[in-house]
Amino acid sequence: MPGGSNGRVPVPTLERLATYLRYLVDLQHDHVETISSAEVEEQTGINAAQFRKDLSYFGDFGKPGVGYNVLDLQNRIARILKIDQEQRVLLVGAGNLGSALVGYPGLKEHRYNVVAVFDNNFAKIGRKLWDLEILDVSRVVELNSHLRAKIAILAVPRASAQHVTDMLIESGVRAILNFAPTGLRVPDSVVVRNVSFLQELAVLSYHLSHEGQEAGSTEPAEA
Amino acid sequence: MPGGSNGRVPVPTLERLATYLRYLVDLQHDHVETISSAEVEEQTGINAAQFRKDLSYFGDFGKPGVGYNVLDLQNRIARILKIDQEQRVLLVGAGNLGSALVGYPGLKEHRYNVVAVFDNNFAKIGRKLWDLEILDVSRVVELNSHLRAKIAILAVPRASAQHVTDMLIESGVRAILNFAPTGLRVPDSVVVRNVSFLQELAVLSYHLSHEGQEAGSTEPAEA
Repeated sequence: MPGGSNGRVPVPTLERLATYLRYLVDLQHDHVETISSAEVEEQTGINAAQFRKDLSYFGDFGKPGVGYNVLDLQNRIARILKIDQEQRVLLVGAGNLGSALVGYPGLKEHRYNVVAVFDNNFAKIGRKLWDLEILDVSRVVELNSHLRAKIAILAVPRASAQHVTDMLIESGVRAILNFAPTGLRVPDSVVVRNVSFLQELAVLSYHLSHEGQEAGSTEPAEA
Repeated sequence: MPGGSNGRVPVPTLERLATYLRYLVDLQHDHVETISSAEVEEQTGINAAQFRKDLSYFGDFGKPGVGYNVLDLQNRIARILKIDQEQRVLLVGAGNLGSALVGYPGLKEHRYNVVAVFDNNFAKIGRKLWDLEILDVSRVVELNSHLRAKIAILAVPRASAQHVTDMLIESGVRAILNFAPTGLRVPDSVVVRNVSFLQELAVLSYHLSHEGQEAGSTEPAEA
């Protein structure tokens, strides 16, 4: 049954593991071979004790006095997160945001492969987004019966978000990264993660005004 | 002192308030005048009891049997979140993502006004991003002494994220929305919210593989 906690890694732990992984990929690019938990804290902002605790949850990773092997740690975390093999991804919404997401280098580095891009705008269908032809979203069920992608990125306006979601689920998608500014109704077998800039900005605004009222004397030094 | 809880609204409540607000702005565009908590649940995915509880925290909003006035509720939530007046925002990073963010219509709707765009790439400086000239990031301290923006959106690669952050803070920025795939070191007077697609995708991947292994018989109906 979805939602059960047996053997599941808690979401905050998953989020931290993904943060470590992103950092480790960067280190590997820079040909760094070993790291200490103190360096992880310095670079990711997650404290060293938390890092060691997260890893100990999955078995013994580091060597006392030597640190952690970057490549080994990267492979193990990728395996825990189940991203050690290529994952096919559908993108719906070929607007500015969709375009930025498809072009984001981090996706390929983490073996997310955007295999098809869809839109409902006839002015866009048939044109290219990066190296992919933009396809008619009404064909998503037909086309994903061959592509068999389980993950979709939703970068459409609120008005079409639920309708597109219903089609994606019918096509076999089981995980949706939602950039549309609205909640999605999905069955229990489908998992959704919402990304909202406006929500994040609102949280910042609130803290900002609060800081201004109470903390007071934190005026910046003028350069 | 930052981090104290006196009189502060908890972050999950702020996030839900921002979700309601986004939905209310859409309703206002569609000329809807009143809503029920059941409709809020249907559209945002946040349950009706939670919605009523969140609002009761700030005083009495709804009328029994009539529902909530859309415009009134919108204004009140904006006031709680302190986004009832225009907020100036700096964007650093005029790449694909930065461009998509500046062009996002929801920003203006919520009175976030991107007043300047910065980059460190000489090929970009002097060119336009939408209607804004791209400025040299090394001038941010000088220019923000006039602009006086307190919020910045950071859409730069990991390698330059910390250096740019330090300049932003020196320029008077107190709140950062961070799209760079790395943690930022900031003083207590500065608040950061991190947005990571890869992290969200990793959480989805994990749940997906877990669902596949345990839930088993949830194969999609083929169309």
